[in-house]
Amino acid sequence: MIVPNITPEFNQDVYRIFERIKDADTEVDVCNIGEPGALYLTQKYDVVWSGLSVLQAAEQAERNGYDGVFIYCALDPARTALREALNIPVVSMFEAALHITAALGDHFSVICPMGSRGAREELIHLYRMDAKFVSVEFFDLGVGGLSDAEGSYKIIARAAQDAVGKGADSLIFGCGAMMGVAKRLSVELGIPVVEPGPVAFKLLEAMIGLGLKHSKVTYRNPIRHDNEERNK
Amino acid sequence: MIVPNITPEFNQDVYRIFERIKDADTEVDVCNIGEPGALYLTQKYDVVWSGLSVLQAAEQAERNGYDGVFIYCALDPARTALREALNIPVVSMFEAALHITAALGDHFSVICPMGSRGAREELIHLYRMDAKFVSVEFFDLGVGGLSDAEGSYKIIARAAQDAVGKGADSLIFGCGAMMGVAKRLSVELGIPVVEPGPVAFKLLEAMIGLGLKHSKVTYRNPIRHDNEERNK
Amino acid sequence: MIVPNITPEFNQDVYRIFERIKDADTEVDVCNIGEPGALYLTQKYDVVWSGLSVLQAAEQAERNGYDGVFIYCALDPARTALREALNIPVVSMFEAALHITAALGDHFSVICPMGSRGAREELIHLYRMDAKFVSVEFFDLGVGGLSDAEGSYKIIARAAQDAVGKGADSLIFGCGAMMGVAKRLSVELGIPVVEPGPVAFKLLEAMIGLGLKHSKVTYRNPIRHDNEERNK
Amino acid sequence: MIVPNITPEFNQDVYRIFERIKDADTEVDVCNIGEPGALYLTQKYDVVWSGLSVLQAAEQAERNGYDGVFIYCALDPARTALREALNIPVVSMFEAALHITAALGDHFSVICPMGSRGAREELIHLYRMDAKFVSVEFFDLGVGGLSDAEGSYKIIARAAQDAVGKGADSLIFGCGAMMGVAKRLSVELGIPVVEPGPVAFKLLEAMIGLGLKHSKVTYRNPIRHDNEERNK
Amino acid sequence: MIVPNITPEFNQDVYRIFERIKDADTEVDVCNIGEPGALYLTQKYDVVWSGLSVLQAAEQAERNGYDGVFIYCALDPARTALREALNIPVVSMFEAALHITAALGDHFSVICPMGSRGAREELIHLYRMDAKFVSVEFFDLGVGGLSDAEGSYKIIARAAQDAVGKGADSLIFGCGAMMGVAKRLSVELGIPVVEPGPVAFKLLEAMIGLGLKHSKVTYRNPIRHDNEERNK
Amino acid sequence: MIVPNITPEFNQDVYRIFERIKDADTEVDVCNIGEPGALYLTQKYDVVWSGLSVLQAAEQAERNGYDGVFIYCALDPARTALREALNIPVVSMFEAALHITAALGDHFSVICPMGSRGAREELIHLYRMDAKFVSVEFFDLGVGGLSDAEGSYKIIARAAQDAVGKGADSLIFGCGAMMGVAKRLSVELGIPVVEPGPVAFKLLEAMIGLGLKHSKVTYRNPIRHDNEERNK
Repeated sequence: MIVPNITPEFNQDVYRIFERIKDADTEVDVCNIGEPGALYLTQKYDVVWSGLSVLQAAEQAERNGYDGVFIYCALDPARTALREALNIPVVSMFEAALHITAALGDHFSVICPMGSRGAREELIHLYRMDAKFVSVEFFDLGVGGLSDAEGSYKIIARAAQDAVGKGADSLIFGCGAMMGVAKRLSVELGIPVVEPGPVAFKLLEAMIGLGLKHSKVTYRNPIRHDNEERNK
Repeated sequence: MIVPNITPEFNQDVYRIFERIKDADTEVDVCNIGEPGALYLTQKYDVVWSGLSVLQAAEQAERNGYDGVFIYCALDPARTALREALNIPVVSMFEAALHITAALGDHFSVICPMGSRGAREELIHLYRMDAKFVSVEFFDLGVGGLSDAEGSYKIIARAAQDAVGKGADSLIFGCGAMMGVAKRLSVELGIPVVEPGPVAFKLLEAMIGLGLKHSKVTYRNPIRHDNEERNK
Repeated sequence: MIVPNITPEFNQDVYRIFERIKDADTEVDVCNIGEPGALYLTQKYDVVWSGLSVLQAAEQAERNGYDGVFIYCALDPARTALREALNIPVVSMFEAALHITAALGDHFSVICPMGSRGAREELIHLYRMDAKFVSVEFFDLGVGGLSDAEGSYKIIARAAQDAVGKGADSLIFGCGAMMGVAKRLSVELGIPVVEPGPVAFKLLEAMIGLGLKHSKVTYRNPIRHDNEERNK
Repeated sequence: MIVPNITPEFNQDVYRIFERIKDADTEVDVCNIGEPGALYLTQKYDVVWSGLSVLQAAEQAERNGYDGVFIYCALDPARTALREALNIPVVSMFEAALHITAALGDHFSVICPMGSRGAREELIHLYRMDAKFVSVEFFDLGVGGLSDAEGSYKIIARAAQDAVGKGADSLIFGCGAMMGVAKRLSVELGIPVVEPGPVAFKLLEAMIGLGLKHSKVTYRNPIRHDNEERNK
Repeated sequence: MIVPNITPEFNQDVYRIFERIKDADTEVDVCNIGEPGALYLTQKYDVVWSGLSVLQAAEQAERNGYDGVFIYCALDPARTALREALNIPVVSMFEAALHITAALGDHFSVICPMGSRGAREELIHLYRMDAKFVSVEFFDLGVGGLSDAEGSYKIIARAAQDAVGKGADSLIFGCGAMMGVAKRLSVELGIPVVEPGPVAFKLLEAMIGLGLKHSKVTYRNPIRHDNEERNK
Repeated sequence: MIVPNITPEFNQDVYRIFERIKDADTEVDVCNIGEPGALYLTQKYDVVWSGLSVLQAAEQAERNGYDGVFIYCALDPARTALREALNIPVVSMFEAALHITAALGDHFSVICPMGSRGAREELIHLYRMDAKFVSVEFFDLGVGGLSDAEGSYKIIARAAQDAVGKGADSLIFGCGAMMGVAKRLSVELGIPVVEPGPVAFKLLEAMIGLGLKHSKVTYRNPIRHDNEERNK
């Protein structure tokens, strides 16, 4: 479980989510990445800043004997490179959750805080999900907006209603920090609202349990660039 | 857990699969459907024969208090009607497994016993999975072919190799009766091979656990046609 | 000519349409289906309820020596199964009319009474018509609304204008009960408005006359499930 | 009925086809075009050579009081311009026949004599038929090859079998000169084989009978360029 | 450099644009076409009127020893026929500029004076650019509107803002007569605004310099129809 | 001009190409990147390794007053992040060259040395070029294979012929190191063969000359993560 930010501030929150929903015999460790890296990931620029550190942390996790790696970020940093580098299952959070969202309806929208529309659309397009894609709806909580939970909820709900107005029949959050509002929103709007972390995590558990992992034909193993390997 | 055939002959096999992989606190019941219905489902004609019986069995399951319904058939009989009729999660096996397969690679093929190519392609197209679809590969075990396990495996493996030759980097079985060969095939070919039942079942468990279900906007509740309802 | 409702109430209306436009030497018989079946077909749930009865009625028609079968319903119940089962031409009304509508413009919308948006979109997608599809526009005549012809027309016309506002350059009705308004609407809007029944019927006549029928490669003949066949 | 070649050599053949299949009360006249124009149309270069003459002949036909215009050529010369210029129904032969072919199966191929692959693909793409398109198969009858009917048939049949081998479940001829072989080929291959002229002609009759024509929103009337109009 | 109108009125303007931006050692000649042809090209009808004259002028240019041909019109008259006929590079202005526009963003709109929406969409579709296409926005300068430069600019800017409101992140002009407003519009809207002529012209220079030209496999050489050739 | 490898070994070769084709008044500087970075870029793993160093070198170039940045690598490292970060034109070599290749034909293939098929397909898909994409053809020169120029050419030519056999009418090289074989291959195969560097470079010159750059709406400026910025 890797959080691709350079501060440990989200680690506890993330751990608490997964502790509650994990299978009895699953063990979860959460870590953040070191420098270089981004404080928050909101666009492709940040993804490039955090990419290599994510990759190296994941390779370290494999060497440490973990059964699978989970990247807790809705911009899926280093997604394809991770699939090339690792021989254990690796789940990029948004991709996995998007597939499960797509199985619940015919028209999904993405709800997320201000950031790059292009970066989200690139992922949806890369995962071949355009045919069910309606829109990305951004909301703006301003500085410190998250302290007022009810106010924040209303701002998020307005973005969600905009999506429904455009024809969305299901929603997915485009940010890992939107915890604890999905259920209420789902009840009020009468449609599925997917918080990507938990559902993607259950998919990783299922993959490990069933012995499934990504294809090594499309994502073939690379020649490593770290010094150890290069000096051989 | 509904097996959409009119004989109980597969019920035990299906039950055994799920008993092994289910969460500790999940309870599974398996039943077949009554008449009218098909003995085996290999094309759309069979789907129409079994459709109404599947729908009625699922509605009965909801009335009986089950948390979710699983249709154990790779032709996904009555898929959209079930989503309209039920207010509990319902998983059509092939659709769910296809989404998870698509998350493992970029190019999948379907491997299944002789039957209608059109019926498979209709499902793949309906689920908007064409962009990653390579081919349907049929194999023919002949009459009683399943008794010779090694011979059967070789015939299936040949179909799988044909798929790889066409560019597939991942495989999904297009039939619920192909149990116990996925793992060996995956190791020998070096690519993911998805047996749809188990992975779709784990997705249903996750959906129930996380409170997710299909969208009732796109799949709105119908006016029921059975006599009880109609006479009200 | 099969009307897939369980009451004979539409049979006369349907017969009158086709009598007026049929070729001199075409003979038309209209029948409804028996139970199980839906009173009206507005979503996939109804399609599953009527599916098997439609299939059996069509198979009976082929045994009785008819040259072709026409399913008078815009939800095209049992469409693929009929193509598998029959060796005479079978026309599913909406599919046939949609192809002809698509030949008249570049952007079509579907106009129909309240019902499932998902069910319509599934058909359009199944027939690979997405590239020219603009929208489904629903109207609501309320209970008994059809008695006031002028009021009904205005409600339909408003839905049609919504479609034009979204870029539609041609319209097709998504319901077989919308008789007698296409021509007026077409003149007032200045675009083609297709009532699916007549044009699909002329296509069936042409197919019979020219010896054309659907492909038996994609829609291969099934092993029949009715008792007669199964006991052999 | 306009044959877009500058010689009258095909007029009689074309007339004979339509005389046999036309409705009792349909009157058909066949004419070729004047110079400038192509002797035979096999690629876009020829289409540009014949385009203006086709357009002027069709405008003349409308002024002469005809109810509809049919362009007997599988390269559909001046197709969009004709729809702009005329206020009576105009059928471009390949487009109309392609829609009807697409209604018979899921995967069609085009069979035609040597010529430009790009020109055929442009039409299929323009008509948004890519999703069901398998291949264009060319055959080469050589100089004078048409005199030996049996030999010609075998060469055409080989191209058709190539298409079936690639997955085609239905065929359409991509040339108006391939008369009288469709039925035999259809029986031998067991799939629909569409000779475009007759079926497109029946569609034009149906359009005239039902009062349908192409959309004047997308194909809006032009300002005419001929001297008469320009001098006003 | 061919201007596909029958009057020389634009020749000087066009020449001045290219003189300013051309490489030092490029020589440019501008000519219009003779009759038959259109005064202005705004829809497919005009394209058919000018097509053959454009084709003949281009063939003449090749015979005269020019290194490349540029068709100065955003409706790309005779585009495919020119590629078949010529063995020197030929650039259809809108196609070339559209590819370069598509390289600058993810969502482009076309801005152009009143004319046929269908004709523009046909080109965008033909060039396989639908995936990045947002809308065609028309503006209406009325009769003589171009004399008031500031008023004209405001009308064009309003159409451009409509496009941005629909999600466009880049614009391309759909008419060769919209000279000298792109830069101001680009600064004010903060997005790329492409005047198709100059950028397409630089591409032609690059093609000639690097020895690139269109594929003669897809655009194979025709048998010529002019009298000289036909009499051989 | 940035070469995204950590050694300067290609700098001279790259410089020589561009010196020959550049405009008289263009100044070109070539540099490689520092650590961390990849020795050679053949798959996404390498792209992640070089990504941040490419981004920082490009930002430095902008600060140094360059008019534009060119990334000399066919895997287009950091492509979207560069567009976000820079306010001067930036050309990712493969993307730019692909658009120009697509303007020359209807069906292109990519020819490149052994590497990841998935990485190439991701780019083609990201740039919305699937509709014209035929295949990626890999060749294997083995260790030191490049020393025998004629042998290398034959191996490349075989891969190119495979592409033509699959229907390609134009080719693009998927690697910046394949210098000096495009012209010969083009003549022998009779189709356009695009070496991506030169044509993409001419496009950058044109963009700078005409004042064009990528859209800052889709690629909005990021909050910078380097220490300097972060400490403000």
